[in-house]
Amino acid sequence: MREESDTAMATKNAFYAQSGGVSAVINASACGVIETARRNPEAFGAVLAGRNGIIGALTEDLIDTSKEPDADIAALRHTPSGAFGSCRYKLKSPEQNRREYERLIQVFQAHDIGYFFYNGGGDSADTCLKVSQLSEKVGVPIQAIHVPKTVDNDLPVTDNCPGFGSVAKYIAVSTREASFDVRSMAKTSTKVFVLEVMGRHAGWIAAAGGLASDTTTPIPIVILFPEVTFDKDRFLAKVDSLVRDHDYCSVVVSEGVRDVAGAFLADQGLKDAFGHAQLGGVAPVVANIVREGLGLKYHWAVADYLQRSARHIASKTDVEQAYAMGRAAVELALAGKNSVMPTIVRRSSQPYEWEVGSVALSEVANVEKMMPAEFISEDGFGITEACREYLAPLIQGEDYPPYSGGLPQYVTLKNEAVEKKLPKFEL
Amino acid sequence: MREESDTAMATKNAFYAQSGGVSAVINASACGVIETARRNPEAFGAVLAGRNGIIGALTEDLIDTSKEPDADIAALRHTPSGAFGSCRYKLKSPEQNRREYERLIQVFQAHDIGYFFYNGGGDSADTCLKVSQLSEKVGVPIQAIHVPKTVDNDLPVTDNCPGFGSVAKYIAVSTREASFDVRSMAKTSTKVFVLEVMGRHAGWIAAAGGLASDTTTPIPIVILFPEVTFDKDRFLAKVDSLVRDHDYCSVVVSEGVRDVAGAFLADQGLKDAFGHAQLGGVAPVVANIVREGLGLKYHWAVADYLQRSARHIASKTDVEQAYAMGRAAVELALAGKNSVMPTIVRRSSQPYEWEVGSVALSEVANVEKMMPAEFISEDGFGITEACREYLAPLIQGEDYPPYSGGLPQYVTLKNEAVEKKLPKFEL
Repeated sequence: MREESDTAMATKNAFYAQSGGVSAVINASACGVIETARRNPEAFGAVLAGRNGIIGALTEDLIDTSKEPDADIAALRHTPSGAFGSCRYKLKSPEQNRREYERLIQVFQAHDIGYFFYNGGGDSADTCLKVSQLSEKVGVPIQAIHVPKTVDNDLPVTDNCPGFGSVAKYIAVSTREASFDVRSMAKTSTKVFVLEVMGRHAGWIAAAGGLASDTTTPIPIVILFPEVTFDKDRFLAKVDSLVRDHDYCSVVVSEGVRDVAGAFLADQGLKDAFGHAQLGGVAPVVANIVREGLGLKYHWAVADYLQRSARHIASKTDVEQAYAMGRAAVELALAGKNSVMPTIVRRSSQPYEWEVGSVALSEVANVEKMMPAEFISEDGFGITEACREYLAPLIQGEDYPPYSGGLPQYVTLKNEAVEKKLPKFEL
Repeated sequence: MREESDTAMATKNAFYAQSGGVSAVINASACGVIETARRNPEAFGAVLAGRNGIIGALTEDLIDTSKEPDADIAALRHTPSGAFGSCRYKLKSPEQNRREYERLIQVFQAHDIGYFFYNGGGDSADTCLKVSQLSEKVGVPIQAIHVPKTVDNDLPVTDNCPGFGSVAKYIAVSTREASFDVRSMAKTSTKVFVLEVMGRHAGWIAAAGGLASDTTTPIPIVILFPEVTFDKDRFLAKVDSLVRDHDYCSVVVSEGVRDVAGAFLADQGLKDAFGHAQLGGVAPVVANIVREGLGLKYHWAVADYLQRSARHIASKTDVEQAYAMGRAAVELALAGKNSVMPTIVRRSSQPYEWEVGSVALSEVANVEKMMPAEFISEDGFGITEACREYLAPLIQGEDYPPYSGGLPQYVTLKNEAVEKKLPKFEL
């Protein structure tokens, strides 16, 4: 029989922060982290969250999540966006800005923090790695674990990134619904519907629009990927051909589409009647090209934040994976791991089977996962069967939030501040 | 005991058509019409639908809905858009264009049609009235019943118009979700989110954005109504004040907002770098005003067709009322009524209690229901309690469609054509 002292761990507080653009399910990961930490009080004291992401750590603006009742933490699972606030703030390298990294270590020491859970994309994986390296160097043990999150789906190794599946579902559902609308109106009115979606560098989200069409519900869809240089003539020929055959078509265009000169199609140098520059989206530009080139009536929509905050139509698969990543991060910490990220490992696509794995942060940081060329159809306007096989499982299942009075009941936490112990720090 | 011959009605076919912009629930009304007609075979033969609305009647392009299995007709209840096609085609007055009205009567006679169910807004109510008047005049008995539908909610007498409640729910839910997103990002990034919604003449849909905020989930929201002349300085002062107090705010702007000169704010005379006119939305215009006036970072979205086709988040109340209006139209016909429209009669707001009524078409045609002034808050940027009391019941309840593989399973009917009997007719 083992002595208790053999297995006893020193109880340490944990730090958790949300980074970059938020998603419909990043709070599900937060829920996974906090609930799992609460179930392991022998190892974890309080989970202290950074208010507005890593800025909260730098400015010692910490939120004591132990003040939140279990029910409110559970409600994070169905609440979109970042419950503790996020930020767009990239730490420079320790060589360029050692001051910030040292401050992080100081704050962690001052608040007895032994675990650093950082929930974000590629940049935050890199920050996480550097915190781990510095903590080792200065002899302050901090287990740094990255929790994957990005609607852009561009993290390597993991099958997909939590957040993406729900955006993909929103875009697929919305494209199907709006296409039914256009089809109804096509005889005398709108024949082309253009939907602008996110994804400045990679066409993962645009590709999801292709899921709207399948064998039981065929829909003529043109996808404009950032990976494919926009060719106006070929685009117009494609739209013309689809409208001739089906009376209508839908166009799903990525915000990142570029012309042959490499310029964003959205950047048309628009000026209003007074000569003021105007920032438009790419959807009206594409719609205008259709009008001028083919004389067809169109409608266009820009989904913007609606697509990444649409918890009401989140993918059940995505919610489960987001939660699993949060839980796995804490379990990796419990197992003594450092400088790692939990991953989703796909075992099978049909039926979709996945399990939790992990990867060293050194293999994740600064690696961007692009769409494979074989996911885009030969004409550049659609997705292939291989792409469909990859994407389809990620939008499976519905996970509706609770409603009251017709509206989803999302939680807003108390977010009580932890008392500060250190001098002020200027960002 | 009454002789059967006393109660026997002559069995006649019914004509049904969808008119104008479609909605998430217009097919629920179609379902109500067809299912109720099928339950009363003593009175109703086939329901013949106009392909692409009234154009189908004029061109004798009729769809035999009796070829569709019961399960597919039932599926219309959860399928958005117009299953038989709609059209934007306004008949002129019989004085100006007697030819079209006479053609309608001829087609109805040729296909033994004794009932005319027309599912649309104000224009179609007017057409319905005129068909009824002409049929009487020429001695061809046609019972003309209008089935109310319009996302704009501008039909008089009825408590609300089927289609509106689901748009209202979509806008309320989306505004709440996107606002949570902006709130998360506000520390270092986006502080103002602008959502453009439909409603060129009346602010009903924009008002629904106000429901996103309530006592349990307060959200700083500015609503820009078409009823309120846009005043840039007052708008900027309002946004500035909200952002100072809450760090962020959301703006819900109606496409119909006008400046002091009466011009649409959306119509900024945009030209691209080549001098080509570009049609933008009002959301980017408002966002640009925020950027230039306050220097705040923003995001903007244009919901367009997504808002009116979003059956996935339809209001249960709206679906039930849409179906009830279709059913009631047939029941009114059974009761021998002519030239009427079923209505929704509100008995109580809290709890919401309603019943089906009816109104003569002469009281509906050419009357537009505007937002009452007392529904807009004194500063012109929000909704009053009276407005909330009116709107809140309309978004109550969820009525999710069935899903397969992560996507809603919407039905596409066979839409088999009825054999033509008349000479061709040129529109």
